[in-house]
Amino acid sequence: MMFVPKEEIKDRIDRLRPLIKEASLEGAFFHYKIDYYYLSGTMQDGFLFVPLDGEATLFVKRELKRARRESPLQQVIPMESLEEIKPYVRGMKRIGLQLDVIPYNQVIKYKALLGDAQFVDVSPLTKALRKKKSPYEIRLMEKAAVISKKVYGKIPEILREGMREIELGGIMESHAKSLGHEGLLRMRSLNYEPYTWHILSGRTGSIVSQSDSPMGGLGLSPAFPVGASMKRIRMGEPILIDFGINYHGYHMDLTRMYAIGHMPEEFVRAYEVCKEIQYRVLDRALQGALASDLFRYSQQLADESGLGPYYLGYDHHKVNFLGHGIGIELSELPFLAPRHDYPIEEGMTFAIEPKMVFPGKGASGIENTVLMGKDGYRILSDADESITII
Amino acid sequence: MMFVPKEEIKDRIDRLRPLIKEASLEGAFFHYKIDYYYLSGTMQDGFLFVPLDGEATLFVKRELKRARRESPLQQVIPMESLEEIKPYVRGMKRIGLQLDVIPYNQVIKYKALLGDAQFVDVSPLTKALRKKKSPYEIRLMEKAAVISKKVYGKIPEILREGMREIELGGIMESHAKSLGHEGLLRMRSLNYEPYTWHILSGRTGSIVSQSDSPMGGLGLSPAFPVGASMKRIRMGEPILIDFGINYHGYHMDLTRMYAIGHMPEEFVRAYEVCKEIQYRVLDRALQGALASDLFRYSQQLADESGLGPYYLGYDHHKVNFLGHGIGIELSELPFLAPRHDYPIEEGMTFAIEPKMVFPGKGASGIENTVLMGKDGYRILSDADESITII
Repeated sequence: MMFVPKEEIKDRIDRLRPLIKEASLEGAFFHYKIDYYYLSGTMQDGFLFVPLDGEATLFVKRELKRARRESPLQQVIPMESLEEIKPYVRGMKRIGLQLDVIPYNQVIKYKALLGDAQFVDVSPLTKALRKKKSPYEIRLMEKAAVISKKVYGKIPEILREGMREIELGGIMESHAKSLGHEGLLRMRSLNYEPYTWHILSGRTGSIVSQSDSPMGGLGLSPAFPVGASMKRIRMGEPILIDFGINYHGYHMDLTRMYAIGHMPEEFVRAYEVCKEIQYRVLDRALQGALASDLFRYSQQLADESGLGPYYLGYDHHKVNFLGHGIGIELSELPFLAPRHDYPIEEGMTFAIEPKMVFPGKGASGIENTVLMGKDGYRILSDADESITII
Repeated sequence: MMFVPKEEIKDRIDRLRPLIKEASLEGAFFHYKIDYYYLSGTMQDGFLFVPLDGEATLFVKRELKRARRESPLQQVIPMESLEEIKPYVRGMKRIGLQLDVIPYNQVIKYKALLGDAQFVDVSPLTKALRKKKSPYEIRLMEKAAVISKKVYGKIPEILREGMREIELGGIMESHAKSLGHEGLLRMRSLNYEPYTWHILSGRTGSIVSQSDSPMGGLGLSPAFPVGASMKRIRMGEPILIDFGINYHGYHMDLTRMYAIGHMPEEFVRAYEVCKEIQYRVLDRALQGALASDLFRYSQQLADESGLGPYYLGYDHHKVNFLGHGIGIELSELPFLAPRHDYPIEEGMTFAIEPKMVFPGKGASGIENTVLMGKDGYRILSDADESITII
């Protein structure tokens, strides 16, 4: 098993400290496992404390031996009772906690324990840190891309008329897992749950669900109303496959279009328009445009093509983003969306996903995961971009 | 698609109101989707408000049309801004919120909006409600059991020497999904994530991880350190398969033992002891023993067999429960565990899982999902209980 290198963890903690200082904090706790994994290299059950000065300490509930093997941090210690944090924060007046994700009751326990200390949300700190990827992280994303390419490459062997969306999703997932896919795509939110994602055929491509996506799919039941469904895939339907991969915690996101026999012309054209939007937006990103401008520019291109009403969803179902950063969460900074007034800089990785949804008929579009480099961008999800007709 | 019947939702809300009254509340919000699904029949993005008197109201962010179709509630309304809740809670002084799961920042928004109202944790109310299942819920669990039996029945066709744990897990999952399994097992906790669960062979059966389970498995990487791994399954190893099913939101949990060629005698004996513990505990549950006593009784039986040191884990890795309630969460009331001083009553469903872990060697044990009836218990997970040798 491959562990996060010592220099990588050291570098992340080193970059975190100035942010802790800037926030006028004396130390910060990280309880959300995606973030303490980023800073410690382990996802064993516990939490991390990083003081402004002094050694970072990982408190481990279960399992200590594995946490010590996985994390290059010097101080990885067992924790039985919350009381044990007291000596580490003695005298501190402003302490960081991840207030965007920690349940209210848990924060109250910290308040009871630490009296008059003030608690400040530190999730923005790790979000900012994680916005740019290191060469090590990019290598893991490249490996995720290799798995992704293999899984998509298998679709023509599997996809048959009459099979259910969920059958196709299940077989893809099973194959992906045998190649190292960790099976779930991560996002921070109380009610988000990972799922088989979007294997949508014909009409289900136009069904919206609880997710913040132009299309949601029918899902399996009211208790799981999103993603692939029991619907059988038919000849001549546009089939949109948006299936993410997670390798060693790093995500890869891409969407491609398929059809059995033939794809209706409307969807072929929509796909070509989406592909063009993608490349024109990427070119403009290279020129240093703000992420918010890239979003607006893509809307303008969609309007010019005449497909504006279907772009990123229809009617009040339209979503307000063209792309999302991607790394150890499926959705992180940067966002190609309104109010994100910063340029896409070297080291940022993001998924760009221009898509069109036609009410009652289906969806068409493309998605790629892209790395912004020094002199140009690189599409990490380098699977073939043509529509596959089976 | 099958929806939750109107009478079912009515009955749940009717049973909730006296609990709201007992807690001296004027109304309660439910933001955690498992709970508002239980009370409304939909998992679309939104939240539910139940006043002590008057109509329950479901506020929906996305997707309204589906929420209206899925929920039999009269008041299912769109919500754009949190401000819109104000008329519904005007003048209320004590309001319920699910403080065990809602992030701190979100509660602060409610405090800012509703001024001097006092907020009280209402998760204990839905937990109490959900402790006993209705005939409708039991029927769904029976359907989950049918899927479970089919999936386990397929293992002898799939399991081959040299295949990876995760390969077997992936194929089982793929098959389960094609039968309606929703793919994830739900538990309320900040850092819990669903996974391929326990496909553990030989040594990996004795590897502990972050989960509160006697065994955790190796998993795929430090970013997913639990469940099935890349380890190849060998002849003569004890293979423990603990693979849950989720059908229309309702879970089914069971564990069976497998081996290729033969199973070492030590594990066969441990399995027989576990099976005996299971049936003797169930008999005592019938006589009205407290759940906490059932846990202690099982420890006594394990000690008498001479296998006490391996029972429910070894050394400091032992877990403190023999069983857990099961329904729309994998882990809910009742618990066969210390301090749970109540009897197992008619209508309760629970998983009972006596298991033994031998350090460095592997694990053996059984698990069934059981319904307590009026005159006896019924094992819902009625798959064959013998060890399968392939």
